[in-house]
Amino acid sequence: MPAPRIRTLAFDADDTLWHHQNLFEETQERFRALLRLYHGDAWIDTQLHETEMRNLRHFGYGVKGFMLSMVETAIQLTEGRMVGSEIQQILNIGKEMLDRPIELMPGVAQVLESLSRDYELMVITKGDLFDQETKLARSGLGPLFTKFEVVSEKDSATYAAILKRHGIGPGHFMMVGNSLKSDIQPVLDIGGRAVHVPYELQWSHDRVEGMNLDTHAYFEIASLAELPELLERLGD
Amino acid sequence: MPAPRIRTLAFDADDTLWHHQNLFEETQERFRALLRLYHGDAWIDTQLHETEMRNLRHFGYGVKGFMLSMVETAIQLTEGRMVGSEIQQILNIGKEMLDRPIELMPGVAQVLESLSRDYELMVITKGDLFDQETKLARSGLGPLFTKFEVVSEKDSATYAAILKRHGIGPGHFMMVGNSLKSDIQPVLDIGGRAVHVPYELQWSHDRVEGMNLDTHAYFEIASLAELPELLERLGD
Repeated sequence: MPAPRIRTLAFDADDTLWHHQNLFEETQERFRALLRLYHGDAWIDTQLHETEMRNLRHFGYGVKGFMLSMVETAIQLTEGRMVGSEIQQILNIGKEMLDRPIELMPGVAQVLESLSRDYELMVITKGDLFDQETKLARSGLGPLFTKFEVVSEKDSATYAAILKRHGIGPGHFMMVGNSLKSDIQPVLDIGGRAVHVPYELQWSHDRVEGMNLDTHAYFEIASLAELPELLERLGD
Repeated sequence: MPAPRIRTLAFDADDTLWHHQNLFEETQERFRALLRLYHGDAWIDTQLHETEMRNLRHFGYGVKGFMLSMVETAIQLTEGRMVGSEIQQILNIGKEMLDRPIELMPGVAQVLESLSRDYELMVITKGDLFDQETKLARSGLGPLFTKFEVVSEKDSATYAAILKRHGIGPGHFMMVGNSLKSDIQPVLDIGGRAVHVPYELQWSHDRVEGMNLDTHAYFEIASLAELPELLERLGD
């Protein structure tokens, strides 16, 4: 029996539709430069990561929480001696992150344009609501999507709730994204299909200890440009 | 001809279901105390408000943006001389804001419990997605609502999109909230009904210049406890 026809294609946003991780990397490099007088790079990175993890409970994911964690880390690493004018530099780095033009991944605009004729397209993304909305607006891709969901956690309960809310059967649903933990595993768990598009830089929060993914259960492509061909092969 | 029956009751969250503004007021008082050595209260307030307004474009609404604006204001007002250990105090004040137990408005739990038998209840609120979700969870009210929408702006386009997405006719929809600008005006504009529950403290961002509301077009009650009676009077 053939699999049911895919009707809805959902896309992760950061590092799937547009570059994001490289912006974090750049910002982190500017942050290190501010603190290099006091500490080595590896120690700065470790402390920032620990602060971020500790603050997840307060701030969730997103650039504003990241900015607050950079400020806190800088204060810790200078034992409270960093002065306001230097902290203002951290705030400015963060605002520049929020203001940066959106750099789409290769081929995204054309691929989505063409797929939007045959599929309902949606975005399911994590992070700051306000930041993700302004990014979608700045990306110019907004009109291609009929649904745009910003969620605080991408687990199987979240996906099940979204599908239920929109009356989409899991068999007609396919998720496309760069994260095995957030975009692939939970979608397979609820009976949907999933396409992994690895991003060149892997996010350190994103490795899943003991994740036991059956690599035959999902598809993998090197770039979104290969998605139309994959869908054709599936007979969709 | 009688008005169509209300089926969906939507509630604003901050200062409608639970206290929020008083938390901002308290936080602002603690912020002033940190800066009183340098400036008078009125000047501190003015500068903080200006920083918030200037940063809305970057941060949107919510506690994390407010924290970043407090840090920035403190740096400006001390001409960059405030040291990290003092800025850490601002971060701590902000985290306490995020962690504070939810203080429900009087009668909320009982009223919602009773209304949930006859109406579909939803929340439509502005702010940080993560913060609003954790507040709903901590409030204990979560199971009473079938829909929970966090939006970045509450204008008539937002309400129209939500109603359309959920297949709710405006004639069957009633919004309940404390803000004329965000909860009442835009809902009336799209043909829904609205109930104003003024909050004792009015938020300074919330006054609408030139808003020309017909005071007969919406209802006003002193507390949510009066809502069931109002609905009965309407014959619903």
